[in-house]
Amino acid sequence: VWSKNGLVHLLKIRFPIVQAPMAGGLATPRLVAAVTNAGGLGSFGAGYLTPKEIAKGISEIRELTDQPFAVNLFSPSMEETKNLKTSQEALIRYHQELGIPLKFSHERSLPPLKEQIEVLIEEKIPVFSFTFGIPPLSYLQQLKKQKTVLIGTATTLEEALLLEESGVDAIAAQGIEAGGHRGTFLHPDVDPLLSTATLIALLSRHCQVPILAAGGIMNGAGVAAALALGAQGTQLGTAFIASPESGASPAYKKALIESKGAKTTLTACFTGKIARALVNRFTKEMQGAPIASYPIQHFLTQNMRLCAAKDNRPEFMALYAGEGFQLCSNLPAGEIVSLLVQQTVAAVQGLAGQIA
Amino acid sequence: VWSKNGLVHLLKIRFPIVQAPMAGGLATPRLVAAVTNAGGLGSFGAGYLTPKEIAKGISEIRELTDQPFAVNLFSPSMEETKNLKTSQEALIRYHQELGIPLKFSHERSLPPLKEQIEVLIEEKIPVFSFTFGIPPLSYLQQLKKQKTVLIGTATTLEEALLLEESGVDAIAAQGIEAGGHRGTFLHPDVDPLLSTATLIALLSRHCQVPILAAGGIMNGAGVAAALALGAQGTQLGTAFIASPESGASPAYKKALIESKGAKTTLTACFTGKIARALVNRFTKEMQGAPIASYPIQHFLTQNMRLCAAKDNRPEFMALYAGEGFQLCSNLPAGEIVSLLVQQTVAAVQGLAGQIA
Repeated sequence: VWSKNGLVHLLKIRFPIVQAPMAGGLATPRLVAAVTNAGGLGSFGAGYLTPKEIAKGISEIRELTDQPFAVNLFSPSMEETKNLKTSQEALIRYHQELGIPLKFSHERSLPPLKEQIEVLIEEKIPVFSFTFGIPPLSYLQQLKKQKTVLIGTATTLEEALLLEESGVDAIAAQGIEAGGHRGTFLHPDVDPLLSTATLIALLSRHCQVPILAAGGIMNGAGVAAALALGAQGTQLGTAFIASPESGASPAYKKALIESKGAKTTLTACFTGKIARALVNRFTKEMQGAPIASYPIQHFLTQNMRLCAAKDNRPEFMALYAGEGFQLCSNLPAGEIVSLLVQQTVAAVQGLAGQIA
Repeated sequence: VWSKNGLVHLLKIRFPIVQAPMAGGLATPRLVAAVTNAGGLGSFGAGYLTPKEIAKGISEIRELTDQPFAVNLFSPSMEETKNLKTSQEALIRYHQELGIPLKFSHERSLPPLKEQIEVLIEEKIPVFSFTFGIPPLSYLQQLKKQKTVLIGTATTLEEALLLEESGVDAIAAQGIEAGGHRGTFLHPDVDPLLSTATLIALLSRHCQVPILAAGGIMNGAGVAAALALGAQGTQLGTAFIASPESGASPAYKKALIESKGAKTTLTACFTGKIARALVNRFTKEMQGAPIASYPIQHFLTQNMRLCAAKDNRPEFMALYAGEGFQLCSNLPAGEIVSLLVQQTVAAVQGLAGQIA
């Protein structure tokens, strides 16, 4: 089973299923290990974490599994600070409603990538995946030298070809259905917003390295479809958010499981970078409002989001979700992986039966 | 082969491949017949045509094939006329540049659906498909009584469930990748813009009638993926536009085949209704410009588009295209169908080999 799948060999996993590296505490070491132990590849979303926090996370994962896992980081993007004052003004009323101050220090920034990557090198992690761009080649070469598998994130063919040139071993092809942040980095202003299927068809024709389909995949039929289109693996995030191992707050899990009539939207209102999330009061009211650049907007809204989660007020939370969220379940993550595998095999057999 | 596919039986065709009913002269009787004769279902896009033109088209198709084909009509939508004066002002300069007058009579409207449908009833056509809404039930019942198969178009689960209630035999599930007009009719203002894959996964779980996947499918891998997701058939438009049988102008075909670096966009600038087309000067400059309601904008831009096609000026044409247009070919339509079938079988066998 899957013996002819190059990506499964490359990642040393059993099934072509990767749990997407959801940053911000969703992909806990427990979730990562549960997916990995079930035969998929768990990914630890460490983009927001300090080197110390990353080392701690890796150590926790290694206590729970001896199988391969990935750590994911954000490639820093050099955006100018814009809308700093007006974006703060737009956020004041939500802070007033939650009874919290709007604290913001202009000094705040994400931990330096260099220091984050040094931990990964030191820890000799099995797989390093990244998004929002391409880290400096010297880091990639160091990781490659010590046999860490490299996965970059692309949303267009142009980005995928640049990743290939940078020496990645595989590409996560992120379609417009994907929940959370969009990895677009080359020309965000003229983003063609390609669907996962369109992107996979294009990349599998033009790229040499294996492609991981990311975006909108929620069940085995989706896994089979991605493989049919030419992907060698799939990356699922939303499918795992409501699992008990996920770090999502109870209000977040409830919103995913119970809001079958809800919709998702693409918005930059939470961090300054486009992301797909469930439509809520905040995403609606922030339409057209001034939004600061990434990561400034992240820090501007961070306290509000944390307090809202604590107060069980999903209307002010970032409920990141892919387009297919209606199909998500709250089963344990390992069972989700097993179910995905069963469904994939059933879908393939059903399909083969149609042409027999 | 395909013996277990309910849609293939229902439509009395050999392969689960439908040529999308591209109105405006793209789906000529020759194209329809070529697809039908190759074992798919050709569709005659008759939305803009008078009853007399429809009867002529059907007669031409029947001269070329004795196999089943579809005729497609637009369900009329009752939109208020808006932006009439400002939208004309926005178009003046293009008419000046082409050296043509901006002619517009407020009296103009599409041929009445009632009279169009009467032709279909009289001609006892095999398949009637429709978009932009649901025609009055009395018409649908008359067609059903005489064994015409009914296919409605949905872009959301809510629309699909309403179509099922109306008694359709199958649903064309149109994802955001689709070229040309978007069929959304219930809540166009809060359109969740679902991808074909997301929509198929959702509809195949909740609908009883067979689902046709429409949007972004360009090759057999795409057909196999749609079937894996639970569709029973596929509907491809862009894949056939550059074929010799298509009525697209040479400039349009050239743009599709040669503009590999081009992008598509969703725009209402051509007809007042959202449609996906290649980005060109007109779509770019009309961003944010006043646009009249459908079908008024259609009549406002009609002369410009016709003259531009004649003058070989693609920058003023409606180059409708799906997101996957880079994969389109200029082979004869019958060969495209044969190739799709071969590729589908190969994709399914390749997939089955992966889990063996």
